[in-house]
Amino acid sequence: MGGVKIDFWHDFASTYSYPAAMRIADLAAARGVEIVWRPFLVGPIFAAQGWRDSPFNLYPVKGRYMWRDMERVCGTLNLPLKRPEPFPQNSVLAARVAISLEGEMRQRFTRAAYHAEFGEGRAIAERAEIAAIIASLGLSAEATLANALSEPNKDKLKRQSAEAQAIGLPGAPCLVTDEREIFWGNDRLEQALDWAVGVRR
Amino acid sequence: MGGVKIDFWHDFASTYSYPAAMRIADLAAARGVEIVWRPFLVGPIFAAQGWRDSPFNLYPVKGRYMWRDMERVCGTLNLPLKRPEPFPQNSVLAARVAISLEGEMRQRFTRAAYHAEFGEGRAIAERAEIAAIIASLGLSAEATLANALSEPNKDKLKRQSAEAQAIGLPGAPCLVTDEREIFWGNDRLEQALDWAVGVRR
Repeated sequence: MGGVKIDFWHDFASTYSYPAAMRIADLAAARGVEIVWRPFLVGPIFAAQGWRDSPFNLYPVKGRYMWRDMERVCGTLNLPLKRPEPFPQNSVLAARVAISLEGEMRQRFTRAAYHAEFGEGRAIAERAEIAAIIASLGLSAEATLANALSEPNKDKLKRQSAEAQAIGLPGAPCLVTDEREIFWGNDRLEQALDWAVGVRR
Repeated sequence: MGGVKIDFWHDFASTYSYPAAMRIADLAAARGVEIVWRPFLVGPIFAAQGWRDSPFNLYPVKGRYMWRDMERVCGTLNLPLKRPEPFPQNSVLAARVAISLEGEMRQRFTRAAYHAEFGEGRAIAERAEIAAIIASLGLSAEATLANALSEPNKDKLKRQSAEAQAIGLPGAPCLVTDEREIFWGNDRLEQALDWAVGVRR
């Protein structure tokens, strides 16, 4: 294509990654930007900061704010919101499946998984839930999961998560331009995409 | 007036409070909203979460991101940016002075203090710097500081900071509507002001 690309880094445990995943395709298309969907695990980045749980659980004041904010964000976007239990969900399996898929199918799986998790409150940490999501896309759950759980694919996710840490991502979601400008948060999608096409605002 | 009001909660140590303080008056005027300038100390809220320093110092990944982001934010607003040393500055004296002033003068002092601190990198924790800022507004530094350091005024700031904690502010800056909707961050000024006048987006 030779056009402008931007990396969309997201974690399946991350609340704000949900509205970001649902909004980004249209915003990118309107600016002619290609999105590279990059699932990663934010856990090692948090662990390096001493956090063994979601900061939204460790710091209840932040957690209460975030859930109310998510209600508002999803409300204005007409996205359903239902908190999964427990929160956060272990996101390793979903990330392994996403990174094992290519192109349009990766995006479709990603959006379907976020919808299941935060739109319907389903436990995407569970293999049965992920299998159902895969099947809903017309893929073989058995073959897809076998590929996702293969050692080369597990390593691929590990390398991608290590890259996120090396770039210095402070959390999820983030958009990162070719020049490694990082934009953190669902709030910043428009600004990041504008930046990618040379518009500063 | 009987019009719509919104509380602007800010801490003089808070980086993102600087662009917020510089942007908010025009945004509020455009919507016919009155801003109530409410300085407070975020320190006790952070201390209750176990933080004894700025999270931007405790968590270097967040800190690096924040300073680069501040460069971009201030760049697009044409605001100068110079990091004060040390960071964060102790903000107690500035907050005491701000809360001791009323009406237009509180706003003028607040903007002047943020400009000095983050626009020029001056150490607003120092009494001499605060005295110079007060004098630049045409006020008597001696009389203003004496009033700011009086016990009733110190208590006023303590009560205001306790109120911020009781409301559940997760950080600074925040806008809070009469119905106690909290909007956190310089990113959210427009959304909060729209919300205050009944526009949901």
